[in-house]
Amino acid sequence: MERIAVLTSGGDSPGMNAAIRAVVRKGHHHGLDVIGVQRGYTGLIQGDFITMELGSVGDIIHRGGTILRSARCEEFRTPEGREKAVSNLQQHGIGGIVVIGGDGSFRGAQHLTALGYPTIGVPGTIDNDIPGTDFTIGFDTAVNTVIQNIDRIRDTASSHERTYIVEVMGRDAGDIALWAGLADGAESILVPEAPYELDDIVERLARGDRRDKKHSIIVVAEGAGNAFEIGKKIKEKTGEETRVTVLGHIQRGGSPSAFDRVLASQMGANAVDLLLAGEHDKMVAIRNNEITAINFDTAFSMKHQPDMSMYDLASILAI
Amino acid sequence: MERIAVLTSGGDSPGMNAAIRAVVRKGHHHGLDVIGVQRGYTGLIQGDFITMELGSVGDIIHRGGTILRSARCEEFRTPEGREKAVSNLQQHGIGGIVVIGGDGSFRGAQHLTALGYPTIGVPGTIDNDIPGTDFTIGFDTAVNTVIQNIDRIRDTASSHERTYIVEVMGRDAGDIALWAGLADGAESILVPEAPYELDDIVERLARGDRRDKKHSIIVVAEGAGNAFEIGKKIKEKTGEETRVTVLGHIQRGGSPSAFDRVLASQMGANAVDLLLAGEHDKMVAIRNNEITAINFDTAFSMKHQPDMSMYDLASILAI
Amino acid sequence: MERIAVLTSGGDSPGMNAAIRAVVRKGHHHGLDVIGVQRGYTGLIQGDFITMELGSVGDIIHRGGTILRSARCEEFRTPEGREKAVSNLQQHGIGGIVVIGGDGSFRGAQHLTALGYPTIGVPGTIDNDIPGTDFTIGFDTAVNTVIQNIDRIRDTASSHERTYIVEVMGRDAGDIALWAGLADGAESILVPEAPYELDDIVERLARGDRRDKKHSIIVVAEGAGNAFEIGKKIKEKTGEETRVTVLGHIQRGGSPSAFDRVLASQMGANAVDLLLAGEHDKMVAIRNNEITAINFDTAFSMKHQPDMSMYDLASILAI
Amino acid sequence: MERIAVLTSGGDSPGMNAAIRAVVRKGHHHGLDVIGVQRGYTGLIQGDFITMELGSVGDIIHRGGTILRSARCEEFRTPEGREKAVSNLQQHGIGGIVVIGGDGSFRGAQHLTALGYPTIGVPGTIDNDIPGTDFTIGFDTAVNTVIQNIDRIRDTASSHERTYIVEVMGRDAGDIALWAGLADGAESILVPEAPYELDDIVERLARGDRRDKKHSIIVVAEGAGNAFEIGKKIKEKTGEETRVTVLGHIQRGGSPSAFDRVLASQMGANAVDLLLAGEHDKMVAIRNNEITAINFDTAFSMKHQPDMSMYDLASILAI
Repeated sequence: MERIAVLTSGGDSPGMNAAIRAVVRKGHHHGLDVIGVQRGYTGLIQGDFITMELGSVGDIIHRGGTILRSARCEEFRTPEGREKAVSNLQQHGIGGIVVIGGDGSFRGAQHLTALGYPTIGVPGTIDNDIPGTDFTIGFDTAVNTVIQNIDRIRDTASSHERTYIVEVMGRDAGDIALWAGLADGAESILVPEAPYELDDIVERLARGDRRDKKHSIIVVAEGAGNAFEIGKKIKEKTGEETRVTVLGHIQRGGSPSAFDRVLASQMGANAVDLLLAGEHDKMVAIRNNEITAINFDTAFSMKHQPDMSMYDLASILAI
Repeated sequence: MERIAVLTSGGDSPGMNAAIRAVVRKGHHHGLDVIGVQRGYTGLIQGDFITMELGSVGDIIHRGGTILRSARCEEFRTPEGREKAVSNLQQHGIGGIVVIGGDGSFRGAQHLTALGYPTIGVPGTIDNDIPGTDFTIGFDTAVNTVIQNIDRIRDTASSHERTYIVEVMGRDAGDIALWAGLADGAESILVPEAPYELDDIVERLARGDRRDKKHSIIVVAEGAGNAFEIGKKIKEKTGEETRVTVLGHIQRGGSPSAFDRVLASQMGANAVDLLLAGEHDKMVAIRNNEITAINFDTAFSMKHQPDMSMYDLASILAI
Repeated sequence: MERIAVLTSGGDSPGMNAAIRAVVRKGHHHGLDVIGVQRGYTGLIQGDFITMELGSVGDIIHRGGTILRSARCEEFRTPEGREKAVSNLQQHGIGGIVVIGGDGSFRGAQHLTALGYPTIGVPGTIDNDIPGTDFTIGFDTAVNTVIQNIDRIRDTASSHERTYIVEVMGRDAGDIALWAGLADGAESILVPEAPYELDDIVERLARGDRRDKKHSIIVVAEGAGNAFEIGKKIKEKTGEETRVTVLGHIQRGGSPSAFDRVLASQMGANAVDLLLAGEHDKMVAIRNNEITAINFDTAFSMKHQPDMSMYDLASILAI
Repeated sequence: MERIAVLTSGGDSPGMNAAIRAVVRKGHHHGLDVIGVQRGYTGLIQGDFITMELGSVGDIIHRGGTILRSARCEEFRTPEGREKAVSNLQQHGIGGIVVIGGDGSFRGAQHLTALGYPTIGVPGTIDNDIPGTDFTIGFDTAVNTVIQNIDRIRDTASSHERTYIVEVMGRDAGDIALWAGLADGAESILVPEAPYELDDIVERLARGDRRDKKHSIIVVAEGAGNAFEIGKKIKEKTGEETRVTVLGHIQRGGSPSAFDRVLASQMGANAVDLLLAGEHDKMVAIRNNEITAINFDTAFSMKHQPDMSMYDLASILAI
């Protein structure tokens, strides 16, 4: 193999740049040319390729987002689109590709493999919802962004002795809500993985009141319900006003945390090693604190499950 | 005067604790007893008073919120409520009171003055919407919170080449939107003080597209329109999706900035000087970079106006 | 067991408060009284005990330092001191104690065990130098503090195209230097665990120059050499000035990261479970991403070793 | 005038990029070509010029440092050097230049004026030590960086009940020390502008001890004494150990604060207006909260003096 490519796809996450840098520098270390594909699968189809020299990834390890940008690509869902992509890769003499993104992006990568093209995935998404890896690149940063902002809300919640409902990202996975809720001592945490009764939430609020708590914070994963509606229902049950904040897109950006920079560096480098070892159709993963690899199919056959012991622990500690 | 009181009222703002500390310490420096009134005017009516020793305000200069807490108080709107308040103050031998809050809180203070009771106001609100002072305590921190979060959004906006609409606080005043928009290079800034045409916004987006800008950010003060509706209208006009984030209550909290800690310290100390000098019915202010005082009535007869030269400048620089 | 105690000892680290909170709340959950011992072993000898109600640990999960404070204690090194300590514990009917601190603190804990007193250790130190656990409470926060500050130095280094030497904590362990160096793309990382040749550093600087790097950053663990002397030697070899910054005590403080808050919560709660299960003379640990426990003696027989694969990776990626 | 140039010189400061952006965008707004000169006066002599299109200053408003870089330049101290500089400017048809930097940089600018060349200065330095302007670009950010780090030190100082000495930048001016000291409630602040007696510091420490303060922080401007020596002397007088941290170069970098971004935008734009109005030999300034201009000679005839009322206030409030 003399030349490899790298792209980012799907929602961006902090640390993607560190992963790109690792692929490029590790590639050069092994004497490879490295090609950057712009805007994910769109650039693959359009042949929007740039040569990545050593200096092209200088001064990006600490920046959020992705210098290669990302985009949705309808055309890649068609056989014609994919054939164009593989044809572009082959014309440029590219022997393998590293796809940094979420599970949607990896299903795209599998289509390339099906056409005989070696791909390695690197899990990058703030949601931590990719099965087969304990952590994804960007998750740690997103949780830290959330808790820094809940810390701010806590100031004003204490001053006014009110209940605040904070909606965080996580359509299918409650990881961000769970970590942030435990880390911020939230009175209630609502995640898609656990059913909840409004009465329990209300009961916890009442208990907090009785022991003279200055404020209550309820963290809601977007997949577990709409924060405004939960607020409305609490009002109906208790007569008490709540305040609602939807953190939104601020969770996707920001300078990556140390953990995400290190994880991204390790995973990006490992992806190059895997390509050089002739591997394909695999995702780099971290499991039990070790960098490893897992077949896409094996990963997809698993179901991501957050550590629900944290859910119980949070409930005990925020009493 | 041997004893003074201090309370915080209205929405909390970062730096209120630094102002409380300044009142307490400056009071003690002049040999005064200082009484803290809890929960604003509610505590005044209920006689919820605590003695503030030197140590009671230790380690709070850097904390958001207010240790004296704040609350709305319907009862204070009645003559009976106010008389109870003054009676409590007199019974405790309190010769004057410092009210830290917004203009609503100062109108309350004026009612005390009308009953013959000396009050001094200290302007604390993130909105910077109090006439008669160039800056209010908490505004600088709120703007910094906003720009740090827009910086995060910028990462993801660049990666996806999208338009983001960010709604910030400011029901009647566009100061936060104006400062944050200029400081963050926002393509468009919508404030209550300036009418806007959707066509201009769309034209600015189109111009950015033509010169290949990677992203566009529109900052909207809540008083200038609903971010979601603006997004919908842009979609109708251009066919392009936008992303909307409402920053919400995170703008009220957080550790105060250096500017707010210094301003709060100066204003709190000045309020004590004014009481000792026999002044009353005045608000401490900063005008032209100088700490001064202004009669409540004079202040209320003015209209707060943000520096609209910043509006024009932002428009030129974000081209 | 009806009553347990908790103390913090040795250098403080961010997350200790979250661990105290977890011990107190988990203890109450199981119907235990929880006693806080002030100033580490000093308070144990002096009987400086406070009852920790549920509310006593409210609003501390996000604060650096330790509300129980910490201190060195010479008297605890004497048999008399220790007997006084155990006697105090027994008089107060305290059936077990959780010691949050570093390995020095755990050796103290072992002395209590030797006197028949059940102790459980929770590893809290920014240095990550405790054998038997992959991570200690406070390490992740310290690394993030370091990289945020190196990011600042990077701005000025780029502007002036200079070499900066940054000394970080780590007398015996290079973990902070290693993580921060990899996370910040440092050109060279000097740790106590790896010998280095000045010529290699100089050669890396020269290589960076040749490929027109805008700046170079050298991260030095304090145990690997004095930053000023390394700067002087580089000057002698190359004629080029360097700039030196010793980050110092800012690394110990700050609001804990999400990782540290979660780890501290899990470890503190686990310590209570262990005491209730009749365990003693053990340290809570995280190994392979799982909370577990390890005998003090087993831990002390091991040698802490940072992941040196990170060292090699950093060297490849910062080329 | 059809073409102007901009350079940054001297120590970099956060907000310089925002100022560059303002010069470029405002220049284009008025139909001017804008040339960027690299590495300050060095680039002027070497003709190291780049054309600054609108997009060249995209996405830099929030970045520390200076994209035009900075360097010391011995050659510019010679008449030959300066003539080369002016000759380069004229050959490129550049009708005026904006110099962003400190007073050393402005003396360089005056030499260009003496050769008949129109120059306008924009004050950029973290030290706030330029006479004639209330604030310089970068000062507000530096003070915020300092207080965020002193907040961290405060955690560990409280936990160990110790005295910390923090040395901050300011060889000739105590502004950073004064603002940070007041903003952080430092027990003592040492600045070059005010003599101090060690006995007073010791007396303040003792007073703090008596009223059971948990920690003491002494902020020292580098021009007011060496932090380590002050620590040694306190040890001699009191027998008590202190801890010393020298914040160093982290104060120069970091994303600029809102205040600095706005100030830089206003000043950069104003500099272009001044050039277009035929002005020269002037520095843009902010005085009494208003953007204005002042002759270099007038500014240099004044002496920068920090607001010493803050010194007295800090002393009263940190009692």
